[in-house]
Amino acid sequence: MIQSSLELIFQNVNELKKSKKVSLNGAINQILARDIFAVKNLPSFDNSALDGYAFNYDFVNKPLKIVGTIFAGDKSVYELSQNCAYRIMTGAMMPKASDTVVEFEKAVVENDMLFVDKSIKKHNAYRYAGEEVKAGEMLLRKGEVLTPDKIMLLASQGIDEVKVFTKPKVAVFSSGDEIVEPWQKASQSEIYNANSSAIEAILKDAKFECEYKGIIKDSFTDTLNAISSASNYDVIITSGGASKGDADFMAEALKELGYKAVIDSINVRPGKPTKCYKLDEKLVFILPGNPMAAFLICFLVVLPTLKKISSQKELNFTKIMAKFSGNIKFKDGRSNLVLGIYKDGKFSTINNNKFGSGMITPLVKANSIYISKVGESGLSDNDDIEIIPLY
Amino acid sequence: MIQSSLELIFQNVNELKKSKKVSLNGAINQILARDIFAVKNLPSFDNSALDGYAFNYDFVNKPLKIVGTIFAGDKSVYELSQNCAYRIMTGAMMPKASDTVVEFEKAVVENDMLFVDKSIKKHNAYRYAGEEVKAGEMLLRKGEVLTPDKIMLLASQGIDEVKVFTKPKVAVFSSGDEIVEPWQKASQSEIYNANSSAIEAILKDAKFECEYKGIIKDSFTDTLNAISSASNYDVIITSGGASKGDADFMAEALKELGYKAVIDSINVRPGKPTKCYKLDEKLVFILPGNPMAAFLICFLVVLPTLKKISSQKELNFTKIMAKFSGNIKFKDGRSNLVLGIYKDGKFSTINNNKFGSGMITPLVKANSIYISKVGESGLSDNDDIEIIPLY
Repeated sequence: MIQSSLELIFQNVNELKKSKKVSLNGAINQILARDIFAVKNLPSFDNSALDGYAFNYDFVNKPLKIVGTIFAGDKSVYELSQNCAYRIMTGAMMPKASDTVVEFEKAVVENDMLFVDKSIKKHNAYRYAGEEVKAGEMLLRKGEVLTPDKIMLLASQGIDEVKVFTKPKVAVFSSGDEIVEPWQKASQSEIYNANSSAIEAILKDAKFECEYKGIIKDSFTDTLNAISSASNYDVIITSGGASKGDADFMAEALKELGYKAVIDSINVRPGKPTKCYKLDEKLVFILPGNPMAAFLICFLVVLPTLKKISSQKELNFTKIMAKFSGNIKFKDGRSNLVLGIYKDGKFSTINNNKFGSGMITPLVKANSIYISKVGESGLSDNDDIEIIPLY
Repeated sequence: MIQSSLELIFQNVNELKKSKKVSLNGAINQILARDIFAVKNLPSFDNSALDGYAFNYDFVNKPLKIVGTIFAGDKSVYELSQNCAYRIMTGAMMPKASDTVVEFEKAVVENDMLFVDKSIKKHNAYRYAGEEVKAGEMLLRKGEVLTPDKIMLLASQGIDEVKVFTKPKVAVFSSGDEIVEPWQKASQSEIYNANSSAIEAILKDAKFECEYKGIIKDSFTDTLNAISSASNYDVIITSGGASKGDADFMAEALKELGYKAVIDSINVRPGKPTKCYKLDEKLVFILPGNPMAAFLICFLVVLPTLKKISSQKELNFTKIMAKFSGNIKFKDGRSNLVLGIYKDGKFSTINNNKFGSGMITPLVKANSIYISKVGESGLSDNDDIEIIPLY
């Protein structure tokens, strides 16, 4: 099962915990390395929420003399005299002794005199200093991802630089004598390396960097040399070479280099021949050679591990509740990855989930995935299920 | 209403339609500028889906002599003689005259003789050339976004370069005398420019580039000069200066420069004082000064417009069905943006959606948004609603 394999991997993960300072405009989707506390009240002074007239509610229903206009950004401090009002713009500082704003649209003005009736409530459109955020209050926590809303909150506090966690250095390989690169020319008996491009794209889309290091030929020495050459990376991801075929040298090479197995398979279809090895602080993932399996395990297992290494707080995928549409049986001795299309609250499979794990087009058709539990033998029409959005 | 405003803007949009070649590893999240057709069958040759033995089903239940091993990538063409079988690895080319593979786990082998019983079905684990994709077939359409699954499909075809649409050049301003930059020091009466950082982050997260051009002071001349200085951009986004206050010079300056209004407000709360102007192929968005309104209108209106300018096919947001939790009333003469938290299939509001449009923290708490229709006066517990995920 994916969850228990992930937990086993997480137990073996060393979080990097290294951080660096970045300016706010380079901080999007980075992971906070420190808790962030408010440095100032938000708003920082009492101000008007609307364009209108500032007055004191004691004088509601009485004629008020309009004595001037206060603009946003005006640094002077104004004070209301009795029976007076100020025109005031959104965001402008409230004059002393005022407690209410009537918006232009609801104000009655004749000859520079303002009349406000009781349909306006006391404190209308009056924004109090600190009503949203108080200085010293915790705003964001270490491990949170800096999405645009959080960037906005930091900017509103005048916080222009933040410490974020550095992300792991990742090397990506592919393996197999039958594999050639998309920029080469495949003969009739060769197949293009689709896995590495997909792995790179999955990582990049999730804001992880990686370097592609090439195809490892099916030989013990080549495998050993390739893994050794990437010893300065935190994580190595390769695909192929993990099943029980004669020409799989990955496990042997890793053992030779002192790596220990963290997981040597996952009870899931597709994706069973997935291995994860560890040496000191380094992890090696050997993903299945079959494209669909490599893609899904990279998404479901490698990505959460990279987040964990980066000390990201939220490691779970966003989940959506859906109604299953159709009927499907699956083997209950394992977990099954069911690709589907989520639309209008319903999740429908692609070809009743019958296709080879070497295929790619079902991934293109799908926009979400259901992961069955071990012991679960199928789904019936209208079952409530929890799905994970894909691309 | 947002939808009708968007339609009006879309009618006034000139798609750029300019394209450039990018290599596959730089193509993630770019927009395809050409339909893509398969250049080769997938798989390109008959091959084994598993590690096992290739044989001819006519000889099921008979002892078969294992005459050799075929590895993936082996360029030789093998042929089965009668009463013979080959060991075969995943992805290896099927020998001629074979039609079925029995996986190692289900094979009975004694003294180099293979026995297969009828529990194995004919054509088991036999992948036929072209069974997934046939050469010439359309794979992807112009206007599709290159997500990781599509990158994988292109790589599997040996397509290493694609034409993608260039995206619009976007300039971002802020406006207002009361605004100072997060990297400056605000006095008691000034407020930090949160809008520009958020707009930049929203665009960047959605893979649009933009350049920040600074704060426009509240003066007609400054506004005129700022807009003129950005005449080489396809889209200008500014915030503030769009309401009816005395110190709003944006509309005047745009008129002076020959811009025509496309929309001069949106019947939505928050976000009403949103304007969009057009001159030749250029668009200017004037977003509200209030942070929450600026954020949501940038997300809900500006982003789809940028996609449209880039000829992206899918302009609608992903929508999720949810059960409303709680009870809420809102004014039915307009559309209302209701921030909320989606969890376990339920959508709950933040403080019953009561907070000022100058606030930012509700955006940080929310992970999704409900947009009410004009004429809709509220939601009751357990109502089925469609929501849009935020960050």
